[in-house]
Amino acid sequence: MARLDARDKQTIQKIEKLAESVLKSVTGGKNPFVEIPVRSLANVEFNTRRRLIELRDQKQKRYFFNVGMAKKFMQTFLVSDACRELIESKKTTSIRDLYYMTKHTLGETKQNTFEEQEESDPIIEDLEVAIDSLREELHLFATGRGSMVGPMTIRDSGDTIDLRRMGSGGWSVPSIVEEHVVELKKHEAKYVLLLEKDAVWKRFNEDKFWQREKCIIVTGQGQPPRGVRRLVQRLHSELGLPVYVLVDNDPWGFYIYSVLKQGSINLAYESMRMAVPKARFIGLSSFDKAKFELPSNVAIKMNEQDSSRAKQMLAYPWFKDARWQREIGEMLRSGEKYELEALSRRGISFITEEYLPRKLRERDWLE
Amino acid sequence: MARLDARDKQTIQKIEKLAESVLKSVTGGKNPFVEIPVRSLANVEFNTRRRLIELRDQKQKRYFFNVGMAKKFMQTFLVSDACRELIESKKTTSIRDLYYMTKHTLGETKQNTFEEQEESDPIIEDLEVAIDSLREELHLFATGRGSMVGPMTIRDSGDTIDLRRMGSGGWSVPSIVEEHVVELKKHEAKYVLLLEKDAVWKRFNEDKFWQREKCIIVTGQGQPPRGVRRLVQRLHSELGLPVYVLVDNDPWGFYIYSVLKQGSINLAYESMRMAVPKARFIGLSSFDKAKFELPSNVAIKMNEQDSSRAKQMLAYPWFKDARWQREIGEMLRSGEKYELEALSRRGISFITEEYLPRKLRERDWLE
Repeated sequence: MARLDARDKQTIQKIEKLAESVLKSVTGGKNPFVEIPVRSLANVEFNTRRRLIELRDQKQKRYFFNVGMAKKFMQTFLVSDACRELIESKKTTSIRDLYYMTKHTLGETKQNTFEEQEESDPIIEDLEVAIDSLREELHLFATGRGSMVGPMTIRDSGDTIDLRRMGSGGWSVPSIVEEHVVELKKHEAKYVLLLEKDAVWKRFNEDKFWQREKCIIVTGQGQPPRGVRRLVQRLHSELGLPVYVLVDNDPWGFYIYSVLKQGSINLAYESMRMAVPKARFIGLSSFDKAKFELPSNVAIKMNEQDSSRAKQMLAYPWFKDARWQREIGEMLRSGEKYELEALSRRGISFITEEYLPRKLRERDWLE
Repeated sequence: MARLDARDKQTIQKIEKLAESVLKSVTGGKNPFVEIPVRSLANVEFNTRRRLIELRDQKQKRYFFNVGMAKKFMQTFLVSDACRELIESKKTTSIRDLYYMTKHTLGETKQNTFEEQEESDPIIEDLEVAIDSLREELHLFATGRGSMVGPMTIRDSGDTIDLRRMGSGGWSVPSIVEEHVVELKKHEAKYVLLLEKDAVWKRFNEDKFWQREKCIIVTGQGQPPRGVRRLVQRLHSELGLPVYVLVDNDPWGFYIYSVLKQGSINLAYESMRMAVPKARFIGLSSFDKAKFELPSNVAIKMNEQDSSRAKQMLAYPWFKDARWQREIGEMLRSGEKYELEALSRRGISFITEEYLPRKLRERDWLE
């Protein structure tokens, strides 16, 4: 294991510690178990001090000598062993691949260790919380999605990459962006701008907004995938860069901002390393329509689902601030939403040349 | 217009020629019209000599003085004028953006030039066929998706990019990859390998397969988007590189191969510049399961839809070859499909170290 880096060694030690605790109870004549934090809504809370959605302390024990638990118990060790193997061979893979890797027929029976991937995915999440490691630390990746450019040099898997010279396509943000894969090097960036839409990111890249403004522009093409969220969090926490989020003016856009900021209920156990509580919502605000004189025919009527989503958001603890209540309230009052592309009605580069510079200049954002 | 490159000048000339022909008929006292090739199934055929799905010659005339056609006539010129403006200002944009750019209220009425994007998209396609220009030449892009690395240097929008040093993420293939954006420079590649799945592409990248084998690896994350198809076509036609396609063993995988190879019915007017009739299907073949000794529990039962899709394919003119009939027939006979990840059952790098090298060595592919 000498050739492994510190992080990988630590993850393997955590896996081994889990296995040892079980072994000990076997040799002590006890019913072996693993202890796993409960990942249900009842065990999730919004930590108002840290401003994060977090898991509470409730745990469940998974016993080996228990008809209902034995299979899951076995699966947990099958998955943890496969992850150990991955880490030791210095390889990474997808959760789909892991499902196939761990799918065996049990002995002479026709029973499989896993029937469907729906069985192995929650076991991975169990393992993540049980040993407090992100799945990326277990060498598992999700589908990559998202592009980034800006005044910064990085190292990705040993290659030095200058994000100032990435052409029109940009750098594909990988799914695993932990320090042992992606190192942040020299930069002159003053902030990070996360754009909901790929098409809008292209506008900002083509207009060289990032060069003029000295910022990093990144898109996750909709709800940002784990790699993009984790990288934005690293840029914020390690380099102290403020993060601005520019999304459509609709409940989905607000939700994208909300997940980036506080984390989500499903992945509450990861908020600590994924969320950016100080992320700033720079637009589109429901008040921008009037402020930037957009014609009324670019607005879209909200449907039932939009309205009920917006009403739910009014009740979120992290949107309790008066300015947020006013923002969401205005959307509901008008009954209208509109997209980033609507700004093009004022000119193709209106968004990069007038809209965003003015919003930044007037400090016109919400936190 | 002096600063525009040759391709852009030519596209503008085509747009102007379209406008002039209309003007001429107005001054000549005639009912002005534009002539647009028909894009329906009835006007599509498989050209057996060129091995491409192509449009036939049938055209329709769109008249200005015709109650049913006047709006579309006006829209055609609105869109072509917006594209001319884009080209002249050297900018590119999305078709969503173009919809907003061209959405006006007509005079004092409450009528809009376009109500929905569903109205403007077909007008773009009309314009493409009417003046025989790809939408990328009209400076319109689609969502970018897909990654590429390999022993090759390119220039993208003026930046020199070494695809040998792209780390784990790779280069994001942009939507517009025409020569004036992406130039192909020095390379040592012997072939192109198109992978259906992003997760599999990551395996090939992490194992540095492209370095060992001197090939370009590219993924479109499912059905490849226009940028990836066009770039693969350029690598094939300009550099003479053979193209291998590696997809899941299911009707969807076969379809991905089929579209890359012959083009599709919907976009028949673009086959000439998008399709690679000599693309080789390297796997997964229905016979690989036995050849590579995969355990039976990695196979997935085909459903009704799979079977009827496969039966349709048996009838495609480009799958009439006996070897293809045998291939698709075997899938139907077994009633089973399986994914690329199933190969991981034999080991995490089985696909890069044993499967593909053997397939290439034994020339075990279909054309």
